[in-house]
Amino acid sequence: MNFPSKLIEDAVNEISRLPGIGKKTALRLALHLLKQHEAITSALALSLTRMREEVKYCSQCHSLSDEDTCSICQNQKRDRSVVCVVEDSGDVLAIENTNQYQGLYHVLGGVISPIQGIGPEQLHCERLVERISKGEIKEVILALSATMEGDTTSFYVGKILKPTGVKVSSIARGIPVGGELEFTDEVTLGRSILTRINYAQE
Amino acid sequence: MNFPSKLIEDAVNEISRLPGIGKKTALRLALHLLKQHEAITSALALSLTRMREEVKYCSQCHSLSDEDTCSICQNQKRDRSVVCVVEDSGDVLAIENTNQYQGLYHVLGGVISPIQGIGPEQLHCERLVERISKGEIKEVILALSATMEGDTTSFYVGKILKPTGVKVSSIARGIPVGGELEFTDEVTLGRSILTRINYAQE
Repeated sequence: MNFPSKLIEDAVNEISRLPGIGKKTALRLALHLLKQHEAITSALALSLTRMREEVKYCSQCHSLSDEDTCSICQNQKRDRSVVCVVEDSGDVLAIENTNQYQGLYHVLGGVISPIQGIGPEQLHCERLVERISKGEIKEVILALSATMEGDTTSFYVGKILKPTGVKVSSIARGIPVGGELEFTDEVTLGRSILTRINYAQE
Repeated sequence: MNFPSKLIEDAVNEISRLPGIGKKTALRLALHLLKQHEAITSALALSLTRMREEVKYCSQCHSLSDEDTCSICQNQKRDRSVVCVVEDSGDVLAIENTNQYQGLYHVLGGVISPIQGIGPEQLHCERLVERISKGEIKEVILALSATMEGDTTSFYVGKILKPTGVKVSSIARGIPVGGELEFTDEVTLGRSILTRINYAQE
């Protein structure tokens, strides 16, 4: 692709490093910014820089936070006896947006993946055992991805939590709501039969 | 959508002002930047700010440029007798990437659109007549969109160029290369018959 300007080329190259954005989209975004008022671009640049520089990790749950302790850990209305273990902060947001969960979180910061060289020592597993040892936590819900890495991590976390005597559960695997039975893959369908639940009819 | 951090929320709001990027995609991009090294974000922010602040418009053709005169207008190898009239700088890039055109450009900066309150006086039409009056230009190619606004602008530019005696042409309208005849709309098909060209068989 030819560029009329080195400055535009630089911006396009930087924008296209973002996931899912190619050179053509990057160019469209750059030309859009050039058409808009200068304040739009400076606000965007400033917000990105500030976010990257100032966002911290919560000292309790390791989720993203503006302060030393995140708003969820600080919130006294939340159920402090349940902790949901997730892979990263994006998962916290996803669960928060369901409005179905009122407990606390624990962000591992990844999943065990020997291919990528991530072992349990790179994750915040020890911190979880430490939190549980304080005695307030009664149940740990494992909410990790239904992948090989996620399952391995669930298995590992379950194992290190065994001596603590805390109740460990996992989010349900099954047919997604709105999903057609005939289009569900056989592994999911098989597991959904094995882990069937009592049908609560009103 | 709930956010764990005001800083992330600000960044997501700014990113989602870009065309074609919603809140979910913006959040995905923000979380991606937070996972990457800080230098990636600062390079992105800097390149956007520099581009917006330092990119100029070429004094000759009004296209985007790093300097007072753009690289195309400065290039002595280009055919200075032909000028291609386009709506904006994105169109210059699109035509440059075809590698089929060796002449100069003239960016109008928009098309006549009474609904959006854009009249000929907001466009660089007078500048085009001025450029032609210098005598070097022999042909003007109108390369505007095949829309109501584009056609109106082509008609207007054609009219003000009449007294100059310069040759005025328009890019061909017809079936796109690779397009199926039966799926082409009737207006395009009708025009492609009216403006048929001699079949050059080797």
